[in-house]
Amino acid sequence: MESPLEYAIGIDVGGTTTKFGIVNHRGEISNRGDIITNQHTDINKFIDQLYDELRPAIKEIGGDELIKGIGVGAPNGNYYNGNIEYAPNLHWKGVIPLAKLITNKFNKPCTLTNDANAAAVGEMMYGAARGMHDFIMITLGTGVGSGIIANGQLILGHDGFAGELGHTIIRPGGRQHWGTGMKGSLETYASATGIAITAKEMLDERINEKSILRVIPHKKIDSKAVFEAAAKGDKIAKEVFKFTGQILGEALANFVMFSSPEAIILFGGVIKAGKMLMNPVKKHMEKNLLPIFQNKVKLLFSELKESDAAILGASALVWEIKQEG
Amino acid sequence: MESPLEYAIGIDVGGTTTKFGIVNHRGEISNRGDIITNQHTDINKFIDQLYDELRPAIKEIGGDELIKGIGVGAPNGNYYNGNIEYAPNLHWKGVIPLAKLITNKFNKPCTLTNDANAAAVGEMMYGAARGMHDFIMITLGTGVGSGIIANGQLILGHDGFAGELGHTIIRPGGRQHWGTGMKGSLETYASATGIAITAKEMLDERINEKSILRVIPHKKIDSKAVFEAAAKGDKIAKEVFKFTGQILGEALANFVMFSSPEAIILFGGVIKAGKMLMNPVKKHMEKNLLPIFQNKVKLLFSELKESDAAILGASALVWEIKQEG
Repeated sequence: MESPLEYAIGIDVGGTTTKFGIVNHRGEISNRGDIITNQHTDINKFIDQLYDELRPAIKEIGGDELIKGIGVGAPNGNYYNGNIEYAPNLHWKGVIPLAKLITNKFNKPCTLTNDANAAAVGEMMYGAARGMHDFIMITLGTGVGSGIIANGQLILGHDGFAGELGHTIIRPGGRQHWGTGMKGSLETYASATGIAITAKEMLDERINEKSILRVIPHKKIDSKAVFEAAAKGDKIAKEVFKFTGQILGEALANFVMFSSPEAIILFGGVIKAGKMLMNPVKKHMEKNLLPIFQNKVKLLFSELKESDAAILGASALVWEIKQEG
Repeated sequence: MESPLEYAIGIDVGGTTTKFGIVNHRGEISNRGDIITNQHTDINKFIDQLYDELRPAIKEIGGDELIKGIGVGAPNGNYYNGNIEYAPNLHWKGVIPLAKLITNKFNKPCTLTNDANAAAVGEMMYGAARGMHDFIMITLGTGVGSGIIANGQLILGHDGFAGELGHTIIRPGGRQHWGTGMKGSLETYASATGIAITAKEMLDERINEKSILRVIPHKKIDSKAVFEAAAKGDKIAKEVFKFTGQILGEALANFVMFSSPEAIILFGGVIKAGKMLMNPVKKHMEKNLLPIFQNKVKLLFSELKESDAAILGASALVWEIKQEG
């Protein structure tokens, strides 16, 4: 039997901030905190700081012996070997044996997974996907991430890298990705970065058309500005979301025909656009589905706060750690 | 314990022919036979004929009591409810409760699944994917089908319809599908039907260029003729395979970034083209993968005879039927 007086530490390593919390069996997070991710180019110093920040929290909840383990979600985090491998948005280059380093420092078992996978597990256990066995989570932030659950399990693939849906090609020969160099991937359009690029392109192409966005210097136009302009009825800004929604909807149709999920759960900063994005997404997803899939797939927004999903999902992996000895 | 003197009937319902055999625990097929699928518009007459053909075979292997059950692979076959639902290439329209009808007639439990799923299970148990936990099977025949295995399990989706990869869009706004009406789906290009269309289009576009294919009446050009011409060095025919291989390779890259399989196994009539198809497929798949996926995924041809894979896979589902009582 699991002790009710047992906790897991959940850690969400993001491109800018690393958030953490102590989680009980009911999925309640306490003793939250965060540190800057890229402050230390030396991974050991990052872990030292994490340790220092977590010590008082661990003491407060009753001490080290009540912590079952530590779960971490991180970009390019690999569940099988506990390494972060070649994460483009982190300062630590190459292969970082994060789970091992954390285990050594904290003297606790540590499981690592991709941040979007962690968020999907969090959503399944405590969020919009409670009770679902088949769903896809799409995170629309600076980039586009994904976590796929099928038959009630996380799809990891043979090497732990499954679920890179942001890098699937949806416009062959289309816009070049700033990081990967690939052309026409979903992330180049449906991420916050992609939305800002689309807005700038439309403003340049339709130079004689009025837009609130023209008062903002080109460099400062971001997805938030586009959203605010669209909310005020700006025609170009509204078309940016139509265009983005069409591409995302077409991509989602392809994903549905892969794993036939009960729901697709959208997550991340971009979903603040609400119906402005969802309506075209829904329309173009349905249009590109075989009849057997139409009007079946639920399109939902995440029910968890952004950092909570990954902290909860990462901590959930801890409960699965087998007791040794 | 399973009795070694126990058999499963495997049935592969194809668009033209329905093949069957009696399978033992080692995956050996005996007493093969086939009937024309669309001879009877009445499904009951089809099942009556199947029964009449199988009676002597069942008698020969030792009688009814040695048959554990019947497994069927069929287009649009649904594992969850045992129905064939709206299969475009079969005469029986709407929803056909095939598993129930077979159970009633044979007085044996019957499991049904999609034909490509059955082939994938067959390949996992007895073919090129033995021992693999994560792979994708792509069937390239008149149409393009697929079966996806992840975590060692068939991905069925919440409704049993997962794995319709032939209908994913790979050329948005591209060639219209003859059946679904959708534009730019993989099947419109990478199926035998699609290859013939590509050849005809190229012959029409490049009217001044010589080709062996010009002696064949347009209506009679099929993928086999294109393959034979290409094997003789015909320039246009060779380019048909280059074009097809590029599109298929790009699609496979997207599939890899979904479930990160150890291998993709190609299957069906079109693979007779061999390297002529495989070389461009490989090239364009690798080109469209993130570095973490490159040079990892095995591209394999099926090791089973075409009808055997589905018969074996369908029969394999029988061993999973739980004994009642």
